[in-house]
Parts: sequence; structure tokens; C-alpha cells
Amino acid sequence: MDHDVVLAADIGGTKISAGLVGADGQVHRQSEVATPATGPLLEEAMRELLGSVAEGASPRAIGLASAGPVDPSAGRVSPVNIPAWREFPLLDLVGAIMPGVPSVLVGDGIAAALGEHWLGAGQGVEAMLGIVVSTGIGGGLVLGGEVYLGPSGNAGHIGHVVADPAGPPCSCGGTGCVEAYASGPSMVRWARGQGWTGLDARALSADAGRGDTIALAAFDRGAQALARGIAATATVCDLDRVVIGGGLSAAGEVLFAPLRRHLEGLLTLGYARRLTVVPFGLGRSAGLLGAARSALPTAQFEFPTPA
Amino acid sequence: MDHDVVLAADIGGTKISAGLVGADGQVHRQSEVATPATGPLLEEAMRELLGSVAEGASPRAIGLASAGPVDPSAGRVSPVNIPAWREFPLLDLVGAIMPGVPSVLVGDGIAAALGEHWLGAGQGVEAMLGIVVSTGIGGGLVLGGEVYLGPSGNAGHIGHVVADPAGPPCSCGGTGCVEAYASGPSMVRWARGQGWTGLDARALSADAGRGDTIALAAFDRGAQALARGIAATATVCDLDRVVIGGGLSAAGEVLFAPLRRHLEGLLTLGYARRLTVVPFGLGRSAGLLGAARSALPTAQFEFPTPA
Repeated sequence: MDHDVVLAADIGGTKISAGLVGADGQVHRQSEVATPATGPLLEEAMRELLGSVAEGASPRAIGLASAGPVDPSAGRVSPVNIPAWREFPLLDLVGAIMPGVPSVLVGDGIAAALGEHWLGAGQGVEAMLGIVVSTGIGGGLVLGGEVYLGPSGNAGHIGHVVADPAGPPCSCGGTGCVEAYASGPSMVRWARGQGWTGLDARALSADAGRGDTIALAAFDRGAQALARGIAATATVCDLDRVVIGGGLSAAGEVLFAPLRRHLEGLLTLGYARRLTVVPFGLGRSAGLLGAARSALPTAQFEFPTPA
Repeated sequence: MDHDVVLAADIGGTKISAGLVGADGQVHRQSEVATPATGPLLEEAMRELLGSVAEGASPRAIGLASAGPVDPSAGRVSPVNIPAWREFPLLDLVGAIMPGVPSVLVGDGIAAALGEHWLGAGQGVEAMLGIVVSTGIGGGLVLGGEVYLGPSGNAGHIGHVVADPAGPPCSCGGTGCVEAYASGPSMVRWARGQGWTGLDARALSADAGRGDTIALAAFDRGAQALARGIAATATVCDLDRVVIGGGLSAAGEVLFAPLRRHLEGLLTLGYARRLTVVPFGLGRSAGLLGAARSALPTAQFEFPTPA
């Protein structure tokens, strides 16, 4: 195997995936596990996953995408949807697993946006927001044609923009955040409250596709909250495009049709109405590829380096 | 007079000001007029104002800040609060008034943010939002230490972020925008609906300072909407600071105290809570100085040039 590969991992509330990625974006080896619930099991899963993917290869660097918030310069993560990790020293753990290999940390939403801008539905776009709709809702911004990390590395956190200050409580401690309406668990919770009896977000998505009234209403409600967060971001950041991925985006038009309809009513200023909304081009690999991109020497931007 | 000056103008819904500004930010001559209501009077006012300020000087360039939306690359403006100008060719008008002098156009909120970042309360800040609270509500972003215009030149339009989708109609055609709560006319309209009988925003501000219950409630309501727009922007853009100016900001703690209180409840994620909110350091001159800065050869960024 070519030496010019990086080891990339994408850590989310639902699953952790890892892969060996070349400078051309080709994924040479990939593996994933369901995200364990406790700290010790999480560390063990990381050890096994990275070890097995890197086995026999000599990656030149490691790119890590994690659910946020993250502190890239301290190398710590506090993912809202992984309660076992608060101020967890992720880069230290990875340094212990793969000694001597430089590593960088980036928020998973930023990684997904970066991946989509590099090889997916955001190629060549000057101002875009990438959104991952899954267990949580993450996001990342590309501004001026380059990923925008923000001073703390947390730009693009669209899931915790308030959609309705009178809304339901959010896992972040706030009220009425986009995530409290549009994440998988939030949609499922609301649908159950309306009498829907299905198992999970995947079942809700399937039921919506079959025309189930409650499931469709859950997606409409989630799409409306998402539209509010997107409209605020598009108005302030003068966006050209929004690219949407994550498990729930697989619902397709069940999500995208009401989303575009709500945006139509929210975007009133001429410049904001040019916004286009499209699904990820890379599907589930966007975050992994973005994590890889952040660790490749060809990254056109500088990530904060741990002290 | 030193040849190395630029002619700057700041065009708002309430007043138009112009000045000759040196590369060091010193204002050599300044004048202003109330914004006329009709197209012909507006053009005449621009002619007189620019002519009198530039008389005897040879400015090397002209920097124009206008209430938005603006189309910097086409040189046209459609200020929400100047109904007589829709797709108005401002750079053509200025070219006719001052033939042969290159000119650039920038949104007034962006100009104010730029001025504050250059010489005011935003000096050295990496990620900030500048807000002008006046007849309308404009704004501008500085990201990565440089002004961020956006692809269409309209980034930072905080006044038309939706604060409450069930709110009052906005002059932009939308519903519940920050501007529909927090602009001077919006606060006055609401206060009158509650029984307040004062003349204008200045009187409302004075009454609030004296402890008038309705006036205080109007500022609290405006501050809440402003806080929602700021919180969304701080969360997505990972802001360090917000600087606030414009006529209404002169109300001081009557505006800033409820604003900080509402932000306290809205900013839940750790990184977002570092946000500081301060008044403009340059007061009413921020937009004019930012317009000048955009026309100075030392501007570190490129403005779109009219075709």
C-alpha cells in the first residue's frame, strides 16, 4: 500500500467509522462500530477500530472528526450526544493508540462540510453550509471557498441555533434548538407523542415515505425548524448552497420537499433567495473524507495544533 | 490638503453623511443631511453633499456605504428603508457627480463593522458582528480577522434574521424579523400600541432612561429579538464579540442590559458563552470610516468591482 495515506475517523453519537484515505480521496480500507455508551467501552472501541484499520500501513497523519462541541487546540471533545465524554482528551487517547503519528481534531459537521466541498455536492461553491441530520445535528461552513473553523473551531453549529424560543428543551441545556425538533430522536419522540408506535428514525422515515400522516408531520416539523436555522445562516453568511446529509437525509423528498417549502417563506431578501438545497454527494463518507482532508498535507488551511 | 484622502459617504434611511478621510482615519471635513423621501431629492442631496465635501480636494477614490440590500458588483442599491431607491444605480450617479474618480460600494452594516474593526471597539478581534440599530438594523461580519462580504456582498444582514416566525410583518416582506422588533420605528410602533404617546425613538429612549414602564418594555422586547439574531450568529459563526452602534444604541444600558440578559439564556454551548457585547467605539462615524477604509489602497481585501 502507498505510504501517502492518512488514517481518518468520524466519531458520532450513533457510530464511529475509520478508514485509510489517500491524497486523492480514495478510501483504501474502512470499518465502523456502533458508538458504545460508556467511557471504557468507547476507548476500547477506538483502540480496536484504529488498530485494525491502520494494521500494516504507516499513515502519515491522523484526522479525527468528532461530534461537537470540540476544542481542537486542546484536543478535547464534549459531544452533546456522547454523554460519557466531557472534556475528553481525544488526541491524547489517539496518541497513545498510534504513538508518533501527528493528529488533528475537527468538529464532525465541519469535517462533513469539508468532505462535501472537496469531493461532493459542494465542489467549487464559495459560501455553503453542510448539515448532518442524525442522532444530533451538526454543521460546517465554507466561506470564501474555504472551510471556516471559527476562533474556537466550532463554527457551523446549526443544530443549536434556536428555532423557537418557546420550543422543547434541548440536550445542550437550551430551549427550542433546531436539534430539539429535527434530529432523529427528536422526531421520533414527537411522533410517539402523537400516537405513532414505530421503533426508530429509520422506521419513521420509511413510514413517512409510505404516506403515514404522523410520520409526515414529524418530518414537516423537523424541516421547519431546520429551515429556520438555515434561513438565519443564509441571511447572515450570504450562502450559495446548503448540502444535507446524515441518516435522516436518506428520507429524501420526505425531508427536502417541506424544507424547501419552509425556506421559500423564510428567505425574503433577494440575495438570500439564490440559495440551493441539495443532498450530500458522498453520503455517509463525507465526514470521514473531510477528517482525512484535514490531515492531508494538501489542506489549504491551518488547523489549530494542540499545545 | 494632503492628496492622499478618499471621499466617503454613508447613506442610511435617516441621514446621509459624507467626509474626506485620510489613510490614518482622520476625518478632514464632514457634512450630513436628512435623507430625502423622493428619488429626485435624493439625487440632488447626494450631488450637493459630495460636491461640497470634495470641493477643492482631489480624493483618490470614493467609498460608499449604503443601507442594504446592495449589489456591489452591479453598483446598485435597494435599501429596505429608502423605498425611492430600488435597483438604483448608485455608482453611476456618483460617477456622474465625480467623473473619473474610482468608487466602491459596500453595505452600511458591513462598513460600520469594518470601521469598528479598523479603529473602534473591534480592533484585533478575530470573529465579530457589528450591528447598527437605527431606522433599520444593519450588520457586518469580520471573520478570520477580515471583513467577510459574502458572494453577493450582503453578509451580516442580522436585521432580517427571523426572531419569531409568529411575529409582526417586516418591511422586507418577511415576518418576525429582528428589525420588526428592534428598529427605532418598530419599538416606537409597539410602545404606542401599549399607550405610550411620545414622538419618536429618541423620546422613547429618554423615557426608558427615566424608568417609563412601557418604554423599558419596548427596549426589552427589541433587545430580546436582537439577542435571538445575535445568538444564532454567534453559534454558527463562532463569534468573539458583538459591537453595537446606531441611534438606538445611544440608549446605553436601557438596551445593553436586557440584551446581555437575554443572551445569557440563549447561549448554552461553552464556546458561544465567551461572546462579549460592547458599544461602538466610533459612534456615528463607524460607517463613514468603514466606507473610507473600503476605498483606501490599504484595504486588505478586494471589493467586487463594477463590470
